[in-house]
Amino acid sequence: MADGAILLAGGSGSRMKGAVSDKVLVRLFGLPVILHSFRAFLRSGAVGEIVFVCRDDAQMSKIKSAIKRHFPKSSKKLSVFYVYGGKERGDSVINGLEALSDKQGLAFIHDGARPMLRAENILRLGEIARRDGAAVLASRVVDTVKRLSKASLSLSKCELEDLDRSRLWAMQTPQVFRAGAILKAYKAAKRAKLALTDDVAAASSAGIAVSIVENEFANPKITVPEDLAYIEFLKKGKK
Amino acid sequence: MADGAILLAGGSGSRMKGAVSDKVLVRLFGLPVILHSFRAFLRSGAVGEIVFVCRDDAQMSKIKSAIKRHFPKSSKKLSVFYVYGGKERGDSVINGLEALSDKQGLAFIHDGARPMLRAENILRLGEIARRDGAAVLASRVVDTVKRLSKASLSLSKCELEDLDRSRLWAMQTPQVFRAGAILKAYKAAKRAKLALTDDVAAASSAGIAVSIVENEFANPKITVPEDLAYIEFLKKGKK
Repeated sequence: MADGAILLAGGSGSRMKGAVSDKVLVRLFGLPVILHSFRAFLRSGAVGEIVFVCRDDAQMSKIKSAIKRHFPKSSKKLSVFYVYGGKERGDSVINGLEALSDKQGLAFIHDGARPMLRAENILRLGEIARRDGAAVLASRVVDTVKRLSKASLSLSKCELEDLDRSRLWAMQTPQVFRAGAILKAYKAAKRAKLALTDDVAAASSAGIAVSIVENEFANPKITVPEDLAYIEFLKKGKK
Repeated sequence: MADGAILLAGGSGSRMKGAVSDKVLVRLFGLPVILHSFRAFLRSGAVGEIVFVCRDDAQMSKIKSAIKRHFPKSSKKLSVFYVYGGKERGDSVINGLEALSDKQGLAFIHDGARPMLRAENILRLGEIARRDGAAVLASRVVDTVKRLSKASLSLSKCELEDLDRSRLWAMQTPQVFRAGAILKAYKAAKRAKLALTDDVAAASSAGIAVSIVENEFANPKITVPEDLAYIEFLKKGKK
């Protein structure tokens, strides 16, 4: 049974304010952002296939040539496929899942803009997902988070509801499922026109319970230009 | 009418792993952490009094001498008082509030371990609290946060509830109230033995609505040693 990873490279990156043309291709310690995740999967030995879900031809060819240059021998360890993203994030995930050769295996769905993924995270997620059926990398929420009541129409004189912090988790990626099961869930959600925030939401909508794998390490997503400097700062501290 | 600030310097700092003896006194750009907040209040001109709520005599005398050294002329602009903290955070806040000379004025309750406070935040909070009665500095939650169902006893096969991110806010400090009103709320909560996460929770328990002032700048709380390096990184980026 072959497990595979879906690396999402799409997304317009509009919040990057034009500072970089493509956040997953920007260089971080000499390697394009998305290839940090590729390297983690390669090192983990956990998957036999990796599917890059790309926004366009230009991005696809840049990723291809970067892999040839930085990981010339990677094809001995795993197969790499390239597909195009869809209109919504869910469409991109569906395209990626369709490309996996074994729908009975696990699919590690990962956001290419999270370069701090570690091989040990991948191995742990695989272990738990094989045992429980689905697993998500997540971190405990450390802030005091409150929820604005539905009745509050503005930020003035609000009713703020306390949320029990011990029950709050910030979702990260990878989010791992049986490929066939999550594909089915996504297709059903698409038919029902559900707006999904992430893959766990797709699983939940299909009644699939998900196990949490706590990540004690930072695993930020690059959204704004400052995030790149922050990741360089984090990486310097760890190495 | 005189407004005042309460700077909380207490807390055991046990999560600092013994790396520093007292997180609010550790030096950040040559100035003890808590005096960064003192300087912001001084610069803002918003308050006539500042009360330091200290954990013990040693801390109190260190703060006193640091103010003498770094802000020798500050006494021309505002009065500084020193009181001891209490057993719980709420007790410390009560002790600080009792020391304010004008209970009709605003009390800016601030965590001394948040050194990134800006004078402009203080001015904006004062403006809103004068208009609406209470204000809290807060930031939008950017992560996808889910809530574990009460029925989930472990992290295995969980039921994860989606929370509408547009309604989630991470509370920061200062949290600003009419001194007398928040003092009364804290005393009532203490009698009712309510466990309060923060001052907004005390206000909410007394039916006081609070206005949100969005802080678009990072305002982290120093909890673990890495937070100091992170703050140095943030400050370097801004200056």
